[in-house]
Amino acid sequence: MSEETEDLIPETESEEQAYSLEKKAIAAILYAVDVEDREQLVELLEPLHAADIADLLEQINPFDRRRLILLYDKEFDGEILSELDEVIREEVISILKPDVLADAVREMDSDDVVDLLEDLEETQHDAILDALEDSDRDAVQRSLNYPEYSAGRLMQTEVVMAPEHWTVGQAIDYLRGQDDLPEQFYHVILVDPRLHPIGNVTLGKIMASRRDVPLRDLTEQMFRVIPVTQDEGDVAYAFNQYHLISAPVVDDEGRLIGMITIDDAMTVLDEEHEEDILRLAGVGEESSLSDRVLETTRQRLPWLGVNLVTAVLASLVIAQFQGAIASLVALAVLMPIVASMGGNAGTQSLTVAVRALATKDLTGANVWRVLRREVLVGLINGLIFALIMGIVGLVWFGSWQLGYVIAAAMVINLVIAGLAGTAIPVILQRVGVDPALASGAFVTTVTDIVGFLAFLGLAVLVLL
Amino acid sequence: MSEETEDLIPETESEEQAYSLEKKAIAAILYAVDVEDREQLVELLEPLHAADIADLLEQINPFDRRRLILLYDKEFDGEILSELDEVIREEVISILKPDVLADAVREMDSDDVVDLLEDLEETQHDAILDALEDSDRDAVQRSLNYPEYSAGRLMQTEVVMAPEHWTVGQAIDYLRGQDDLPEQFYHVILVDPRLHPIGNVTLGKIMASRRDVPLRDLTEQMFRVIPVTQDEGDVAYAFNQYHLISAPVVDDEGRLIGMITIDDAMTVLDEEHEEDILRLAGVGEESSLSDRVLETTRQRLPWLGVNLVTAVLASLVIAQFQGAIASLVALAVLMPIVASMGGNAGTQSLTVAVRALATKDLTGANVWRVLRREVLVGLINGLIFALIMGIVGLVWFGSWQLGYVIAAAMVINLVIAGLAGTAIPVILQRVGVDPALASGAFVTTVTDIVGFLAFLGLAVLVLL
Repeated sequence: MSEETEDLIPETESEEQAYSLEKKAIAAILYAVDVEDREQLVELLEPLHAADIADLLEQINPFDRRRLILLYDKEFDGEILSELDEVIREEVISILKPDVLADAVREMDSDDVVDLLEDLEETQHDAILDALEDSDRDAVQRSLNYPEYSAGRLMQTEVVMAPEHWTVGQAIDYLRGQDDLPEQFYHVILVDPRLHPIGNVTLGKIMASRRDVPLRDLTEQMFRVIPVTQDEGDVAYAFNQYHLISAPVVDDEGRLIGMITIDDAMTVLDEEHEEDILRLAGVGEESSLSDRVLETTRQRLPWLGVNLVTAVLASLVIAQFQGAIASLVALAVLMPIVASMGGNAGTQSLTVAVRALATKDLTGANVWRVLRREVLVGLINGLIFALIMGIVGLVWFGSWQLGYVIAAAMVINLVIAGLAGTAIPVILQRVGVDPALASGAFVTTVTDIVGFLAFLGLAVLVLL
Repeated sequence: MSEETEDLIPETESEEQAYSLEKKAIAAILYAVDVEDREQLVELLEPLHAADIADLLEQINPFDRRRLILLYDKEFDGEILSELDEVIREEVISILKPDVLADAVREMDSDDVVDLLEDLEETQHDAILDALEDSDRDAVQRSLNYPEYSAGRLMQTEVVMAPEHWTVGQAIDYLRGQDDLPEQFYHVILVDPRLHPIGNVTLGKIMASRRDVPLRDLTEQMFRVIPVTQDEGDVAYAFNQYHLISAPVVDDEGRLIGMITIDDAMTVLDEEHEEDILRLAGVGEESSLSDRVLETTRQRLPWLGVNLVTAVLASLVIAQFQGAIASLVALAVLMPIVASMGGNAGTQSLTVAVRALATKDLTGANVWRVLRREVLVGLINGLIFALIMGIVGLVWFGSWQLGYVIAAAMVINLVIAGLAGTAIPVILQRVGVDPALASGAFVTTVTDIVGFLAFLGLAVLVLL
């Protein structure tokens, strides 16, 4: 890319855009692909982190992606595969030449290979296992024996451990003598003779201490052992709650079999949050920007289907009041307002409840207090908006009674919204259904039905 | 707590409840508070992590909280304060005796004190600054000079650095000679003579290498320098994207002035996600379970107010068709279905778009492709639900024309939902408004208005 071309593209990136790929960098890379200038492409991609190259591949169109990968050829790094979105990753694997794929996979850490294999189809799965060396293949297959989303899938099997009776000097001599230490490690794990982990010693403490100090005197105060079958969400929670940097993983007998580090926990935390947000919105939790149209349609259809049922139920309520609406059309004009306000208030309460359940802040110890608060908040907001809507109803349609009716319906629906928005997620969690996934549909059903029923029912009583 | 009492409370915790406080543990603690058994209370709280004690304090009621804190007295640890929710924290600080508070604050790291001070009122602010020793107070006040939510507030000023020309042996001797090394550190930062950081060397590499190896040969491949004014959200993004463990922080001249570690970045990532979810639901981003009724009401009111305006706008659209509704009440029964489906489809699209903007996956390079996808998804889902609702309309009201009308309105509204759900967050981001905060209101307005307009408008054209 010549300097001339760079100048043609104005510098529009502000500080807010830190870490996003610059437009002109993307343009330069695509230009190199266009003119098939391999040397230039390699030079442009070389300074980029694998995660950024993965982002680039996700953002360009499939045609450019294919050409870029074929031109980049042998330079393609295994880490890029780990960083790619599932959908694009499958596509990229199918584009890579077999020998390039084999090289890329052989470069990867075993836990990354496991992560890669989890999402792949059978044929690609086997191609990748075949590319591995025997010892790596064994490690990967052992990991795959642990349940999906468990600590066993997340851990690395390479750990640095020391007998509990060692001194600093013995540990340093041992580490100097090893030539296959893990790429990243921050602690030496002390173990008893039966390989039960009993403490972590940070490398910093070891380096700063005299050779004759027993390691046992240097163990960290904060020490948590992760069972191999623990759900990865709970693992991430423990790292976040207790500010862990790394934690030993143990089997059913409590023996050390691996280690999880905070960067893996951070990735899980990020994914779990993403899933929660997408579930709350009724979007398939695995969905991504790279999904194809049909896949996206399929993911969104179920929630829209549930919503249709909800909406039809609400319509059935309205249908009971056709006579009232025919004699006073103002009811049809105003009724969506009550339902809509209830839906929004309910969504507010349920989002707070779902989050509090996820962070284990909403428990049996405070559920009644939270419920009371939500109902009171609904009552106060209900009274405020009842006043406003009562006046709107009066001014718009010149009827005091219509004002009373919409005001009363508003109070009722906002109180019910607070109640349902809190109680429904709590109950769903108790019966073992993910509250993030299902609460929205239930709460909206309640607020729609109560909204229409309260408004139209009161109207019949008061007005007709 | 006697074993007898423990037996009275059935064991209901399943594996899913990992890391949440057990009911019976809470009961035992509250019992100790009830009978004012200080020794028992201290014994029960002693094994708990500060984060768990903070969770406990958040979950019990204000009366028990006060009694517990006064009974716990001098054992109260500064770290508990760091872990508490803002609202409860202010309350707890006002309960703590001045000397207990002073002790607690003196135990804390300077970055935790900064975090604590950020949220406090003036009088509490000064009380805490007064409790600090002079040197600590200076460090804290220097930090407070950096903008809120910047890397400067997040960093610790204690760093371990070495000149770039040092060898492993020199580094080890230096570390052994220091007696005030940071509590947690994982890298030695290499700096040039002008204190510009030029690389990280992990302690593991130093320990595993011979004494005469130059540190420069051991630097990590992945190395990012964080400007002190960078937004903490971007810092968290960098740690997550590039799998950083710690990163040096530099001033405007690029000189090393501090260090950020991954556990701080993880906390920020967690907070940012939380904010995003709460904003998407129209709940104040700072809201928590511990907020009082009036505070919660105040936080939720604005979004409900915006929704009321939206709902009234939609009602104004309906009001234009009062004649049509009066002559065919079925329209009033069916119209909420079209608006509701549009609202849900729009929320799906906007959630995906808002997330993709936050993770920098939706950029100028792919926005048109994503927009096209969302419109196509809306079209396909629109056709599917148009068919279903067309049949429902026909069967329910026995009118082919009503079926056509609701089907056509459904297709129109779901296409518009895909378009608006993607375009609105992108445009808001371009003009500098947080898309998570404002998209929902705009998108729902569009889908409500388009839904009612399309359905009622087509009805007038076709049916009347």
